[in-house]
Amino acid sequence: MKKLYLIMLLMFCSYSIIAQEVSDEEFISKIYDEALVNGQSYKMLEYLCLRIGPRLSGSEEAAEAVAYTKAKMDSLKFDNVFLQEVMVPHWVRGPKEKGFIIFGNEKIELNPLSLGNSIGTGKGGITAPVVMVYSLDELEEMNDKNIKDKIVFFNRPMDPSTIETFKAYGKAVDQRVAGPSSAARKGALAVVIRSVTTAHDDHPHTGTLRYADNAPKIPALAFSIQDADLLTSLLLKNKDLNLYLENYAEMKPDALSHNVIGELRGTESEDYIIAGGHLDSWDVGHGAHDDGAGCVQAIEALRILKKLGYEPRHNLRAVMFMNEENGLRGGIEYAAQAIKKNEHHLAAIESDRGGFTPRGFTMTGGEEAAREKVKTWKPLLEKYGLKDFDQAGGGADIGPLRPQGTLLMGYLPDSQRYFDYHHAGNDTFDKVNRRELELGAAAIASMIYLLDKYGLE
Amino acid sequence: MKKLYLIMLLMFCSYSIIAQEVSDEEFISKIYDEALVNGQSYKMLEYLCLRIGPRLSGSEEAAEAVAYTKAKMDSLKFDNVFLQEVMVPHWVRGPKEKGFIIFGNEKIELNPLSLGNSIGTGKGGITAPVVMVYSLDELEEMNDKNIKDKIVFFNRPMDPSTIETFKAYGKAVDQRVAGPSSAARKGALAVVIRSVTTAHDDHPHTGTLRYADNAPKIPALAFSIQDADLLTSLLLKNKDLNLYLENYAEMKPDALSHNVIGELRGTESEDYIIAGGHLDSWDVGHGAHDDGAGCVQAIEALRILKKLGYEPRHNLRAVMFMNEENGLRGGIEYAAQAIKKNEHHLAAIESDRGGFTPRGFTMTGGEEAAREKVKTWKPLLEKYGLKDFDQAGGGADIGPLRPQGTLLMGYLPDSQRYFDYHHAGNDTFDKVNRRELELGAAAIASMIYLLDKYGLE
Repeated sequence: MKKLYLIMLLMFCSYSIIAQEVSDEEFISKIYDEALVNGQSYKMLEYLCLRIGPRLSGSEEAAEAVAYTKAKMDSLKFDNVFLQEVMVPHWVRGPKEKGFIIFGNEKIELNPLSLGNSIGTGKGGITAPVVMVYSLDELEEMNDKNIKDKIVFFNRPMDPSTIETFKAYGKAVDQRVAGPSSAARKGALAVVIRSVTTAHDDHPHTGTLRYADNAPKIPALAFSIQDADLLTSLLLKNKDLNLYLENYAEMKPDALSHNVIGELRGTESEDYIIAGGHLDSWDVGHGAHDDGAGCVQAIEALRILKKLGYEPRHNLRAVMFMNEENGLRGGIEYAAQAIKKNEHHLAAIESDRGGFTPRGFTMTGGEEAAREKVKTWKPLLEKYGLKDFDQAGGGADIGPLRPQGTLLMGYLPDSQRYFDYHHAGNDTFDKVNRRELELGAAAIASMIYLLDKYGLE
Repeated sequence: MKKLYLIMLLMFCSYSIIAQEVSDEEFISKIYDEALVNGQSYKMLEYLCLRIGPRLSGSEEAAEAVAYTKAKMDSLKFDNVFLQEVMVPHWVRGPKEKGFIIFGNEKIELNPLSLGNSIGTGKGGITAPVVMVYSLDELEEMNDKNIKDKIVFFNRPMDPSTIETFKAYGKAVDQRVAGPSSAARKGALAVVIRSVTTAHDDHPHTGTLRYADNAPKIPALAFSIQDADLLTSLLLKNKDLNLYLENYAEMKPDALSHNVIGELRGTESEDYIIAGGHLDSWDVGHGAHDDGAGCVQAIEALRILKKLGYEPRHNLRAVMFMNEENGLRGGIEYAAQAIKKNEHHLAAIESDRGGFTPRGFTMTGGEEAAREKVKTWKPLLEKYGLKDFDQAGGGADIGPLRPQGTLLMGYLPDSQRYFDYHHAGNDTFDKVNRRELELGAAAIASMIYLLDKYGLE
């Protein structure tokens, strides 16, 4: 009961605690109290999702998100808030895609979604028979003449029996990334893929494709699981059915955009500890879990530490990276600037696995001794659901810091729901749970605190 | 890739594995494959939620749920499927509740929901000033004359800073359970409570109240957090505002209902290992997480073991308990019948914390050595997210088995979202994630397998 009154008091008062006066256990408890009682992650995410919306690199919305997160960190009175210029690819989807299965005298309407970076069919579309394959290897072994002038349908699902969905994703996504050029080299006119998702619904999931230099560019689109199942079933009846695809996607000239960086200056070291997410998203849904969540958690982590009066030893940064989805230009530029300015990064934490309930942190890069040191903090974090420190992984945006010797960490929430929403129209604000999101911010703040206080030596 | 083809094969074939031929690790992996590839929990829950709907004890829907789960287990060819008669309280809500704040010349409409077992105001309702309190203790210390002829508003929220939401619930729910009689003893006309929830929305959350023998029965209703916040704010401006409440809830004579039990017969022991949930729910929403999820997981756990050709040593049961919400009559009757028929229960697992992603199992009762033995299986289960075996707790329905010396276990999913939906109109099927639900069934099946294979000695 006493604790509750204290909590209610906290809701109305500002206060300051000198971290050195309290134990780590107590300080981390205060971080969680602040996140769960006064947390601002959810409100910031609501703004990003419902006021701004999806934020594809080069779009107006991406620019609004840059302005919003900068203004937010300014209003929180971080020591230093600035933008970092970066030229980004500017891909646009164009008018709504069309798709039909043409089966005898019937036309069945589908709901395709262009893959990121795809070119368009243009007016008139593409009509062709379909070749269904389950892997790049299977395609490779086929005779080119069976592929030429066809539409290749990559149909391998994510393995549902893999417990960690990110692993299943990693094993299926080659079809999306490399499939279009593999098919094009064999003369295909276009590619469609079964969405790389755990859901069984009618949302198609986009995501980046990579056109190889040695292949013609052909249009590539995703089907929802329901559409992919329908096409599969019909192909079993009639291999010669035709598919009609029409889309208008195109890559425009690179556009100027920005990383957004907020900083709390350290008192004892010139080194940096950063937390971040990517501010860009695909252009469907709200980019709520991917990766509005990670951005607001990074801001919130620093807000909490500042609110608690914590005085960092190292320089701490919240970084909103631009263009993770279809270019990684923000992450690359951030690391390039770090080298140029001789900014040494002790550790970098990326949150880009959604705003779900906490499970732990992944680690990669840095010294083995550093990773082992982080694991010694597990007893302080387990009661907050952070029990998994054994998976490898960092994050796409912080990857370019690796040559610095930076310890790369990924905030690891539960993965079961992520790929139901990933890159799809249903990655919306209502799919994020307030407590789960705020707990993630507290987890990141706690990790920053421990990294800052104890270093990695 | 090979594994995926195997999985796809599994989707179309029936197969049988003699458990003794494979290691525990392999067998548990097969349990998870079956749950995630061919799982039926989600489809069963869809039927319970969308075809039948909420299932209050004594209602037609509860009877339909009894018939459905019995038919389902019959169709799965469990060795023995039967009903166990139990007389249950038959409380009915009656027509939609009404509530108004009367403030000067204004009336502001509220959205109250009768607490379970509450009596009704009847026509004409109750109009009275409000006394706001934050605890039973605070009420107790007040002079009766300040309570007499008033409506008592219990306003203490769940502590948001408590990480495990069930603990915060346990510390707030006394207001709902005991508040009405405490207020009645001091002359109050009615009670309203701030819903016991983690959500910040407009759904009122019902739940059982317990009328004491030594107090008059008075109507008691829940307000959503939004209504409770409004009332709080207005009371700070004007303590003398009036509240109008109108409801028609009433307790009818006890009705005949049933526990539903499905059994796989053991080959080596007469003892029982059971898994269960409660089939009844409140009458709002779908009773999806509470506790349709637990029921279908219990059926599914046995389905999986049978499908894999596992031959149990002990007798295994899936038990759908009736009337957990407002009487616990099913759990009490089940334990009474067990004594009568001399059925010794080695272990009982209850799933009644929602169909969320797995975290572990709670334990209570039984011998300490038995609980320690269960913990030695942790290395087999950790990779499935089951890492927490240290919390105390079993389940309400299995509690009456405790005097038998039964090890009582609770399936422990993540708790962050549960109280957003608990006992409210938004505990609907769409709030359940398919993979999270199926993983719970696999967790329970794995625990039954280990308990059955190794016993607890």
